[in-house]
Amino acid sequence: MQTGVYGLGRFGSFWASLLAKNFETLGYSRNPARPVPPGVKRVELSGLKTCKTLFLCNAISSMPEVLPVLARTLKPGTLVVDTCSVKVYPVNLMKQILPPSLDILGCHPMFGPDSGAKSVKGLPIVMCRERISDKTYEFWKRHFERMGLKVCEMTAHAHDREAAYTQGITHFVGRTLDELNLQTSTIGTTGYQSLLNIVKQTCNDPWQLFLDLQKYNPYTAEMRRMLHQGLEKMLRTFDSIESLGE
Amino acid sequence: MQTGVYGLGRFGSFWASLLAKNFETLGYSRNPARPVPPGVKRVELSGLKTCKTLFLCNAISSMPEVLPVLARTLKPGTLVVDTCSVKVYPVNLMKQILPPSLDILGCHPMFGPDSGAKSVKGLPIVMCRERISDKTYEFWKRHFERMGLKVCEMTAHAHDREAAYTQGITHFVGRTLDELNLQTSTIGTTGYQSLLNIVKQTCNDPWQLFLDLQKYNPYTAEMRRMLHQGLEKMLRTFDSIESLGE
Repeated sequence: MQTGVYGLGRFGSFWASLLAKNFETLGYSRNPARPVPPGVKRVELSGLKTCKTLFLCNAISSMPEVLPVLARTLKPGTLVVDTCSVKVYPVNLMKQILPPSLDILGCHPMFGPDSGAKSVKGLPIVMCRERISDKTYEFWKRHFERMGLKVCEMTAHAHDREAAYTQGITHFVGRTLDELNLQTSTIGTTGYQSLLNIVKQTCNDPWQLFLDLQKYNPYTAEMRRMLHQGLEKMLRTFDSIESLGE
Repeated sequence: MQTGVYGLGRFGSFWASLLAKNFETLGYSRNPARPVPPGVKRVELSGLKTCKTLFLCNAISSMPEVLPVLARTLKPGTLVVDTCSVKVYPVNLMKQILPPSLDILGCHPMFGPDSGAKSVKGLPIVMCRERISDKTYEFWKRHFERMGLKVCEMTAHAHDREAAYTQGITHFVGRTLDELNLQTSTIGTTGYQSLLNIVKQTCNDPWQLFLDLQKYNPYTAEMRRMLHQGLEKMLRTFDSIESLGE
């Protein structure tokens, strides 16, 4: 069975290399200079026609451009699976833009090339069941389980609400701390080492992913407001306290 | 050789139990209900007179009350070692309040009962050499090394500057995030799990330690200002961006 990956950026390359362990995997990138991971066959856009399943690993913000092209290109019966870090927005777009002859599944592998570098065993993947037959849905669910992933089935809204206060806040804190240019330190506590690892890992991901993760999740604005309020409250604690260290 | 610990709170109990592995260790707490860890002998204040070295594990903010009492109580030649999470403030107070007949060493074990629960091997301890003979200083330095600790020798000011941007910022971020009442999540990324661990670990420490760590370190005000600026900048990034998730 041929499986395709659209988009070979940081996550797409990683995901394609995982798929290639079990499937004949085709990879497409709009950028011909982008390297293809070992075991994955590079194809032109039209080459994706032979795929039974196509995983979308393009940027969230590029969905409005990419989906109409796929609607014209893919053969009836193909399953289109997005892997975006938000779910409400891309799932709604897929349902609007892709013709009824194409099946739709929302997915969010909650890991990347850093957190999954050694192994993806035990890491979560979210599945949002949309326009898809029971048989095809169960096929992919079982495959993810065989990969060792922890499958979490939920609605797109439930995902976005929970992701805003888990992945979303982690990225926001990581990017905020990166503004302070924190350094490794010989006297760093174990807590500080963890904080520094969070900064490094979130800032390894593309800036575009960070922006999209905040912008296209309907629940992150409230999370940012709460974080802002939390910080202001903590800062006020010290407003009335004179520093006594000198 | 008898070694004493003044203050048997969360850190004092832990530190006394580590010392008791190698020394006859006496423990004093102003609160008679406070339990004494196994291997440590509870004494009255006057019982600390026989110690050759006394480690101070009381709250930073209680130093102005505690030091005059010790100045009247301890025998000439006793080494007084503070273990505060800030160094400029307690070291200056010790030099002002303790008579020249008492030796002074500043220390900061950069760990606690959580981070050192399994082992303290490889964890850092800061030593600020103050009023102390070469022989006594080398004795404790070698002892800390034998405990497996990584000894970092520096001035009190160098410690406080670096601690503000390592331990200080970690606690500030942990306490701020605690305001959001974050929950464990089945779809938590590994980065989020780390963030949640930081919140739990920093909030396990007493609130008083958090306040003192910010208040008595002359460099934390600037750190908080930079954190505030970093967050405002990140928030502004999304001011002009309309949320598109719905």
